Amino acid sequence: MSDALKLGSTIGILGGGQLGRMLSVAASRLGYKTHIFEPSANPPAAEVADQVTTAAYEDEAALLAFAEAVDVITYEFENIPTSALDILEAHREIRPGREALRVSQDRITEKEFLSGLGLKVAPFAMVDSADDLKAALTEIGAPSILKTRRFGYDGKGQARINSAADASAAWADMADSPSVLEGFVKFSHEVSVIAVRGASGEVACFDPGENVHVGGILRTTTVPARLAGSLRMDAVLMASKILNALDYVGVMGVELFVTPEGLIVNEIAPRVHNSGHWTQNGCAVDQFEQHIRAVVGLPLGDGKRHSDVVMENLIGDDMDRVPELLVEPHVAVHLYGKTETKPGRKMGHINRVVLPAKA
Amino acid sequence: MSDALKLGSTIGILGGGQLGRMLSVAASRLGYKTHIFEPSANPPAAEVADQVTTAAYEDEAALLAFAEAVDVITYEFENIPTSALDILEAHREIRPGREALRVSQDRITEKEFLSGLGLKVAPFAMVDSADDLKAALTEIGAPSILKTRRFGYDGKGQARINSAADASAAWADMADSPSVLEGFVKFSHEVSVIAVRGASGEVACFDPGENVHVGGILRTTTVPARLAGSLRMDAVLMASKILNALDYVGVMGVELFVTPEGLIVNEIAPRVHNSGHWTQNGCAVDQFEQHIRAVVGLPLGDGKRHSDVVMENLIGDDMDRVPELLVEPHVAVHLYGKTETKPGRKMGHINRVVLPAKA
Repeated sequence: MSDALKLGSTIGILGGGQLGRMLSVAASRLGYKTHIFEPSANPPAAEVADQVTTAAYEDEAALLAFAEAVDVITYEFENIPTSALDILEAHREIRPGREALRVSQDRITEKEFLSGLGLKVAPFAMVDSADDLKAALTEIGAPSILKTRRFGYDGKGQARINSAADASAAWADMADSPSVLEGFVKFSHEVSVIAVRGASGEVACFDPGENVHVGGILRTTTVPARLAGSLRMDAVLMASKILNALDYVGVMGVELFVTPEGLIVNEIAPRVHNSGHWTQNGCAVDQFEQHIRAVVGLPLGDGKRHSDVVMENLIGDDMDRVPELLVEPHVAVHLYGKTETKPGRKMGHINRVVLPAKA
Repeated sequence: MSDALKLGSTIGILGGGQLGRMLSVAASRLGYKTHIFEPSANPPAAEVADQVTTAAYEDEAALLAFAEAVDVITYEFENIPTSALDILEAHREIRPGREALRVSQDRITEKEFLSGLGLKVAPFAMVDSADDLKAALTEIGAPSILKTRRFGYDGKGQARINSAADASAAWADMADSPSVLEGFVKFSHEVSVIAVRGASGEVACFDPGENVHVGGILRTTTVPARLAGSLRMDAVLMASKILNALDYVGVMGVELFVTPEGLIVNEIAPRVHNSGHWTQNGCAVDQFEQHIRAVVGLPLGDGKRHSDVVMENLIGDDMDRVPELLVEPHVAVHLYGKTETKPGRKMGHINRVVLPAKA
């Protein structure tokens, strides 16, 4: 697929959550249709997609029909079963490609990949048993954090270890899943770079955003981030290095810890990323559109920012604040169409456009 | 309907063109679903709507089923047959209401309504025959312009009369439709106000934009418009007067001529308007979202502008310029998903975000 898909082509999206929903909207802006594949009924993305397949990732017939019905395949989350990818890939190109999924689906593989590129990561050790954990704690020390190698998100599948006494409870939390113990990094704050690589290899990065997490869930992203000029350049170079090494096509979120010794990679996500939502109201071309452009083979936008933005997630009962947010000047409200509010559930976000003070 | 429709409710939209498409996207941002009613197959809005009914406006059963399936009804164009509105209105509220449609569907009714509010309009005379036209030309003079009273758009159903010798050809162009002769107004430029009135009667206006038409079709809208402070206030007051007089709920486009003697109303459109597309990239809340907020009973956004914008329509072969526009900094490209390009057809638009010059 060297040329761009023609107008009116259909992009298949694995996953029907809010990221798929906003990808669908971006695709429509460029004249493309979307087809959502999602196991659960009535997913948020279905409401703005041209077609929807409701089927399990184990349903071979449904996967085949989906692949036949679309012109290219992308995804809104990285934890897609390998067996499903095998079936789909035999029929349609998947962007970003399998290597990015292989690397990012496993925390150890990811850290080894990043280290191999010469990028700094937090100290880590493999943990497959209670004995492994004991040995790892001797090496890494406490406080540290035990995480499942696969399928974790939004702070799920994680247990903090403040001293050796917490070890057995932490290991029990992992329910025998292959895990990794990560040492704590002393960082002043976290930033993320939303980077995109096009089908012909060009890379564009949005300005780094500064993230605040509460309880393992992203709370706010502020752009511009506090970041010295040299580190700002480093952040972009690191992201580019990762995308090029993976021969990546699409948007990736790269989370970085800012430390006195420089930037340390926290984790990467091979998809549009919550910390990139600010681009919807800060840039003429947002992260969702950049991803679609890459996936269909269009040239990337340059990712320039026209406005400063503070993005804030609306989580659970934050929905009660929507009436006041709707009337706040220069606030853009983005809701995901989820009718049931649950604690910790991402229901929407707002982008506060920050105007320069008048002289 | 005094309270807002609850999240997940469905907004029925009559008409499936690009305005319906962008209304659907705005509805999704606020957590609402849309259902498009459109006679022609595969309309642009269908690709981002939850449901689509493909049926004629004369299909009573389809109209009834549509009304039953939605929670409120709005429209993207004003030329909906009265018989269809009668059926729909018996089952669901239509916003904006019937009075706005009655007034705007007929150029004479509209001008009489506006004059009745004390607003200036161009001199006009009713023309139902060749003899009427002769008499009207004596009164109004030439150059002037003959227009059908109903169903005109984008310069269609119009004939310019430079001298009495053009009269018979112009009248032939109208094909016996009831018509109106409008005198030319000496204006320096045209501006439009995109105004919105909420369900509880509050009015908000976006900053006036300055319009350039070519061949009867809007070419560009530039914000801010060239407009003295006093006229800027006048423009907003005139728009508010019109909306209040109609007990209007939703967005209206009000086109105004700027003359040495003040502002003259050219025409009104009871819907989101092409000259308001700049708001997508100049404001946190755009015209499409303001319309949806009004229709579902949510509070309006304040309509503040965070950036200056030049909107340019992509008409017919302008689509050939898309590759270069995609890579121009601070340009947002909005395409409508129309796969067939025709001369004069609106295929998309761009918004150029204009950054302040650095000091």
